[in-house]
Amino acid sequence: MEIEPATPGKARLFARGWSWLKALPARKFKKVVEAAKSIKQLGQDDPRRVIHCLKVGLALTLVSLLYYCKPLYEVFGGSGIWAVITVVLVLEFTVGATISKGLNRGFATLFAGALAIGTEHFSRLFDRKAEPIVLGVFLFLLATTSSFTRFIPRIKAKYDYGVLIFILTFTLVSVSGYRTENLLEVAYQRLSAIAIGGATCIIMSVFVSPVWAGKDLHKLTASNLEKLANYLEGFGGEYFQADPDHEEEGISTITAASNSKLDDKALLQGYKSVLNSKNTEESLASFARWEPGHGGFHFRHPWNQYLKIGALARQCAHRIEVLDGYINSDIQAPLEIRNKIRESSTKMCLESSQALRALASSIKTMTDPSAADPHVKNSETSINDLKIALESASKLENVDLLAIIPIASVASILIEITRYVERISELVHELSLLAYFKSAATSVQQEPGSGLHRGSVKPVFDDDSDRSVTIIVQATNVKIIDHQYDPSNTDLQENGIPDPAVKSDRLEERLNYILGRT
Amino acid sequence: MEIEPATPGKARLFARGWSWLKALPARKFKKVVEAAKSIKQLGQDDPRRVIHCLKVGLALTLVSLLYYCKPLYEVFGGSGIWAVITVVLVLEFTVGATISKGLNRGFATLFAGALAIGTEHFSRLFDRKAEPIVLGVFLFLLATTSSFTRFIPRIKAKYDYGVLIFILTFTLVSVSGYRTENLLEVAYQRLSAIAIGGATCIIMSVFVSPVWAGKDLHKLTASNLEKLANYLEGFGGEYFQADPDHEEEGISTITAASNSKLDDKALLQGYKSVLNSKNTEESLASFARWEPGHGGFHFRHPWNQYLKIGALARQCAHRIEVLDGYINSDIQAPLEIRNKIRESSTKMCLESSQALRALASSIKTMTDPSAADPHVKNSETSINDLKIALESASKLENVDLLAIIPIASVASILIEITRYVERISELVHELSLLAYFKSAATSVQQEPGSGLHRGSVKPVFDDDSDRSVTIIVQATNVKIIDHQYDPSNTDLQENGIPDPAVKSDRLEERLNYILGRT
Repeated sequence: MEIEPATPGKARLFARGWSWLKALPARKFKKVVEAAKSIKQLGQDDPRRVIHCLKVGLALTLVSLLYYCKPLYEVFGGSGIWAVITVVLVLEFTVGATISKGLNRGFATLFAGALAIGTEHFSRLFDRKAEPIVLGVFLFLLATTSSFTRFIPRIKAKYDYGVLIFILTFTLVSVSGYRTENLLEVAYQRLSAIAIGGATCIIMSVFVSPVWAGKDLHKLTASNLEKLANYLEGFGGEYFQADPDHEEEGISTITAASNSKLDDKALLQGYKSVLNSKNTEESLASFARWEPGHGGFHFRHPWNQYLKIGALARQCAHRIEVLDGYINSDIQAPLEIRNKIRESSTKMCLESSQALRALASSIKTMTDPSAADPHVKNSETSINDLKIALESASKLENVDLLAIIPIASVASILIEITRYVERISELVHELSLLAYFKSAATSVQQEPGSGLHRGSVKPVFDDDSDRSVTIIVQATNVKIIDHQYDPSNTDLQENGIPDPAVKSDRLEERLNYILGRT
Repeated sequence: MEIEPATPGKARLFARGWSWLKALPARKFKKVVEAAKSIKQLGQDDPRRVIHCLKVGLALTLVSLLYYCKPLYEVFGGSGIWAVITVVLVLEFTVGATISKGLNRGFATLFAGALAIGTEHFSRLFDRKAEPIVLGVFLFLLATTSSFTRFIPRIKAKYDYGVLIFILTFTLVSVSGYRTENLLEVAYQRLSAIAIGGATCIIMSVFVSPVWAGKDLHKLTASNLEKLANYLEGFGGEYFQADPDHEEEGISTITAASNSKLDDKALLQGYKSVLNSKNTEESLASFARWEPGHGGFHFRHPWNQYLKIGALARQCAHRIEVLDGYINSDIQAPLEIRNKIRESSTKMCLESSQALRALASSIKTMTDPSAADPHVKNSETSINDLKIALESASKLENVDLLAIIPIASVASILIEITRYVERISELVHELSLLAYFKSAATSVQQEPGSGLHRGSVKPVFDDDSDRSVTIIVQATNVKIIDHQYDPSNTDLQENGIPDPAVKSDRLEERLNYILGRT
């Protein structure tokens, strides 16, 4: 038997194992340090997270007083536990989520409790042996039907937690009611404990450094527009950047773009998060609807408008995603042609980007977005410039059509993006009216005799003065497109290039109404 | 005072109110009927929903026996309520979600309970007055730190519910422990009640008409590929469809496409749901990882591979979204040019579509995806045909470059989509190996002497026979691209056109290993 060669093998294995073991503490330590760093980063990225955790700890400690304080314990008894359960389950990161869960829990408990007590009384009409059967049948029917309502999209979106608590409470009360004599007293104790827990959560959430879902949605919308702007600003430089080595030969490889700094790359890739923003935006909007007025946001702030802007921003991001493919494409485009369209394309990108940036800053500061108008206009005019440049490029001799394809695609997608920026600008203008953004112009001019009460607004538009337009002028200058918005589907139904002529009478009426009030 | 005119006004108001009231029951009835219809539709769309609700009702009725049966009540007492709470909170639609929640709840309760009892014993070292203070400090620290872990992405993804239950249980036990003498007994009772509730859920979920998250993910992936295929199949017809009225004039408006049937439209728009499939896929995959083997899916089924395919399908969908803009575009393209590229584009669309359809059916039936290979090859060759057609189109006289732009963009995007289909095909081939799909060829040929144990596989490829390829041939025919896949980010990092030469040694090794086993 070959024992000899086995020993060195074993020895080697042992040596390897030993060095692995020796290195273990160092590696473990490194891992722990890395984990600690990433956790610290989580807190630094958003210090509100740390504050939220302190709030949870504080709220729990507060409601636990129901147990620790003898006088309170004498009132609530074992039911105090329901205040604790409520705090753990209801206190959420944002105010809207907390209020939504708190109200859902409160009403569901009240309703289910009442129903369960009714069922309990009904079942007592039967004899003691039949009682559990009657209760069981009721329980089965109610649990089955209520569970089914959780599949209905509208209920799932807003009241899912309420239905869950409804089933839970009904079961708890009807089941434990069978063994409890003073059911009403227990129900009263529990309900007040839940109310105390819920109130603690809502007070803690609203008054101790609140995190407003609405404000987050507002900021997210602005920052998404900024991310698109970053891309468009960088795209011109990336795509039309000429490789100095190849410039003389008239051919430039696009790999030159890969020389640019890593920081720029990260900035450019920001748009990718916009692609998947739909769920975040929708949940923030659904929480925001529960929030009371705060800061510049009143109770019925037009949150849907943010979803519309978000849907268009995503459409833009889809096009940018395709555009981005051309930066990294291995298909080479002749420098001669790229030079032809460089100026107009770069200008179009820059103007669109500046328009988006102005719109983002208008949303952020809640001021009138008219600063974006000249950029939108310029980007529109550069569409024609680009077309002329492309036409002259096609007249070049010795130019292969195949070489033009990628350039033509880039140009065509850029034109589409410009059109989308135009539509985003329209939506932000609508938002500024619906949400009473502060006006950049201080005085509201009103043409004598232009009776607003007649229900129509006369356009007062001066093409030469971009900056001195009045509020009324801006309002009538907005081209209103009715998106036939369905809140359950934020992907707008129209595609391609919009028709600015499609006007919505309904929305125009609403704008006139708002104008009449301001 | 003008009382006279007020009366007719009032009468009119009254009449209007009356007719409104009269119409009310009819309208209410109509609304109720509509709601009932949509609810019925929910059940018909997926009858598993109805079964799930019945399962919830049954499970709740079962655990309520802990209360209704006297012998059981004597064992569990009031703690039986925890079985009820567990069933309401843990029983979810899919097996994976139920198991994940059940295990999370079980382990969190066990761990938190032990910790709370330890804390309780520690606090009893202090005098009765200091005890609540010590307990409160512990509670605050633990609730704060545990809440923070819920912000850590990896914990949030898998153990969010566990952490919540951990906080809840620790608070409950430590708080009520202060007022309970026989703490250990209560803890034991509760734990067994929770175990009974959890076991009921898991048994109900796994053995009574189970809904597997993994199977749903599998089906979703296949149906997403089919939706893309539907679009590509329809696109050729939609875009290149000539308006018979305008054909003679050589110009065709694309509005002709709007004449096509509404059903087709709905089929074409199916790809839109692919755009936002990321969250659904990720949650299904995370549940699937908890599921035991079932049907063709073993415990460590390569669920990540589905996420990779899904990410590429989304990339495809982004491009289709942009493509779709051109169908509805108001920019008219001359029929002359469109005719030039019609044949090659339509062929490319059809071949890509058939490749996707073959891949989808391979996933659905879990059979070898080599039926897609000839279509992938044909779509690749039609890229060259399209380029040649475009080149000849550019040689036409009197053709304006501007007219070519949209056509060139469409062609360029179609080419990109074809490249993505190629990559999807590669990933499905990988999946077929990793998940042991049934082979289409019945016999496994092995070249004599091609030592699989040497760790390398010799390619045995016969170009003329597409159908009689052996498993080994198919495996080495797969071009492996290492996507450096990060489960927290399913958006692939590479963009643009892929380089099939980038091979991953690691994955190849794994494939060889798998091949050695089959």
